[in-house]
Amino acid sequence: MKVFISGIDGYLGWTLALYLAARGHDIAGCDLFLRRKWVEEMGSQSATPILSMKERLKVFKIRFQKELLFKEGDLADYNFVFKLFKSFQPEAIVHLGEMPSAPYSMIDVHHCAFTQTNNIVGTLNILYAMKEVCPKAHLIKLGTMGEYGTPNIDIPEGFFTIEYRGRTDTLPFPRQAGSWYHQTKVHDSHNVMFACKIWGLKSTDIMQGVVFGTRIDEMDDDDSLYTRFDFDQCFGTVLNRYCAEAVIHHPISPFGAGKQKRGFLPLRDSMQCLSIAINNPPQEGQYRVFNQFEEVYSVTQLAEKVKKVGNELELDIKISNLENPRQEKEEHYYNPDHCHLLDLGYKPTSDVEQEIKIILKDLIRHKSRIEEKREMLIPDIRWDGTRRKSKFLSEVKK
Amino acid sequence: MKVFISGIDGYLGWTLALYLAARGHDIAGCDLFLRRKWVEEMGSQSATPILSMKERLKVFKIRFQKELLFKEGDLADYNFVFKLFKSFQPEAIVHLGEMPSAPYSMIDVHHCAFTQTNNIVGTLNILYAMKEVCPKAHLIKLGTMGEYGTPNIDIPEGFFTIEYRGRTDTLPFPRQAGSWYHQTKVHDSHNVMFACKIWGLKSTDIMQGVVFGTRIDEMDDDDSLYTRFDFDQCFGTVLNRYCAEAVIHHPISPFGAGKQKRGFLPLRDSMQCLSIAINNPPQEGQYRVFNQFEEVYSVTQLAEKVKKVGNELELDIKISNLENPRQEKEEHYYNPDHCHLLDLGYKPTSDVEQEIKIILKDLIRHKSRIEEKREMLIPDIRWDGTRRKSKFLSEVKK
Repeated sequence: MKVFISGIDGYLGWTLALYLAARGHDIAGCDLFLRRKWVEEMGSQSATPILSMKERLKVFKIRFQKELLFKEGDLADYNFVFKLFKSFQPEAIVHLGEMPSAPYSMIDVHHCAFTQTNNIVGTLNILYAMKEVCPKAHLIKLGTMGEYGTPNIDIPEGFFTIEYRGRTDTLPFPRQAGSWYHQTKVHDSHNVMFACKIWGLKSTDIMQGVVFGTRIDEMDDDDSLYTRFDFDQCFGTVLNRYCAEAVIHHPISPFGAGKQKRGFLPLRDSMQCLSIAINNPPQEGQYRVFNQFEEVYSVTQLAEKVKKVGNELELDIKISNLENPRQEKEEHYYNPDHCHLLDLGYKPTSDVEQEIKIILKDLIRHKSRIEEKREMLIPDIRWDGTRRKSKFLSEVKK
Repeated sequence: MKVFISGIDGYLGWTLALYLAARGHDIAGCDLFLRRKWVEEMGSQSATPILSMKERLKVFKIRFQKELLFKEGDLADYNFVFKLFKSFQPEAIVHLGEMPSAPYSMIDVHHCAFTQTNNIVGTLNILYAMKEVCPKAHLIKLGTMGEYGTPNIDIPEGFFTIEYRGRTDTLPFPRQAGSWYHQTKVHDSHNVMFACKIWGLKSTDIMQGVVFGTRIDEMDDDDSLYTRFDFDQCFGTVLNRYCAEAVIHHPISPFGAGKQKRGFLPLRDSMQCLSIAINNPPQEGQYRVFNQFEEVYSVTQLAEKVKKVGNELELDIKISNLENPRQEKEEHYYNPDHCHLLDLGYKPTSDVEQEIKIILKDLIRHKSRIEEKREMLIPDIRWDGTRRKSKFLSEVKK
């Protein structure tokens, strides 16, 4: 299939290009390399050294014996998107080209407005270009489980049928996102749903859990094929950040009480799920939602898993909670559905500890790159708009 | 009270300035005069001739014996908003400064992206400026009943308590907006709700029905105090458009089957309700939603009312339905709550026919201005992104 990936230089984007190319798909993609700039802006770097896109395209060609069609450009520029779709004629579009960090969006009004504008306009341009160029293509849109927030009832996959005052309807499940970034995904979901309704487009909106991992099998133990791995406060997801902390003997640091529950899945499962969505498109005009994660854990449960596996690798690890820079419920009910992907054949990796072991081993090889940016492990971006480094709660209590 | 009105040059904005000034409030406001430009872009004009802002400020001063503090500028420019709030120190902020037209937002990708960016960023800038300058001020944010769409169950005021799989929670009512413009109001609602939650701001989010009317008593029958009155396909609301049609003997033209139901209220009631909201602010950190309308009517019921009143004024009127340029349900359940404002003392005008008579009399005086732009009464902006003039259904059927 001809698959277009926006944000193809990113953590998921580059990995997906390899995963799908290894399965015979034709890949095209675009990127503006903003992720590289944002991580630099945060004073950090990828733990895994990654190649430039120019070099990536060379190794891609050697590995898969075919070209990846790449264009540098801005999704907020409609003509750029339109021309790309016109020349590539995608059958599936995986939209990963958004600013993906909650703390980054909370820095100040400018980061907030940039995040909302960038994400919303990019998605709108993709929808319009689809309508004009390839209305039968399938949009796989990356959303987040964070769209739902933490309601006190079960979370269905996008829609729920409810009775209210004696009447019944099937409605979008209410969204209660917890950052300006997460709000953009809510806005996108509303916009994509509307475009499917009025233009007959088809889309799978992926409410993805927190992804962790350094690799997929298709990277062949080849450093030149690796994807980026961030550990700074903005672009490092929680389990990845714990692993980075573990390999440099920095305390593993859950935020606040540490009882926040989230859905998680390894990088390889994220790829498997996206691939399943691509291979099983919805009907014309259908907007469907997949909750994409393997299992729900509290952030403390994951910290304990990293500690356990780290100890097996003879890393000296302690867990020490940090002041929570976010405003979020630290203890709450959490029971989201995740049947749609399982019904389509998703086989979860299940062995989280094995996955953590792989991450730690990969990171140990690059631990000097984490050590160099050690300061970036402690968050200072607060939800109240100020900047103040979080202290360890054990220090605060003293 | 010190009340700041964004979009103070608009249909509601200017009217509200007069209404509140007559009740002793201190008024400041801003505008970029985009509404004037958009209506010009549509090839139309206000049926009521209106003064420039420079002239408006002069008559305001004569009428109320005090200054209105006005600044021309863009809400999308954070520094502009910040400085305004800093100098005026508002106690209430009525945010009317958005692009308010569904068809305008549907013209093409550029109008769509402009609408979403303009409306979202303006609101975000206001929220940030409030947080920085006047966190105890009350934001009265203009949303629309259109945020809810037309679900098959009752529509509560913003939130509903539901049981789902044996557990209970109070959640935001799902939104299913029917245009890119209406979507911006949904996005705004999510953003404002979030800002109240994390920053302790207070806001009333007004889900307003369709407003109609040429005047309020505070205009003193004085032409120089009148607000604009649009009748073109983008900026003319349905009942106002009917009245414009009636006075030039153009068929009154409901769209499609004409069984679409909406909540409506006269301009004077909109002012009464906004004033009630201002005088009864919510608690710190509270985000509340008011459904602001007087009564639900189908668009055909209103057409018949205009015909009846018009006949009394010896206008020769027929009703002739047009092809619906929109994609919307033309027959549906519709039962929205509207108790909150009544509980706070809202006294609905009730006599819609009397209100229609006032509009028709006012418009008869200016009918040459409507006649000049007669062509603008027939819509050509379609929800599928094309431009094609709607035909009368009686012609289509032939």
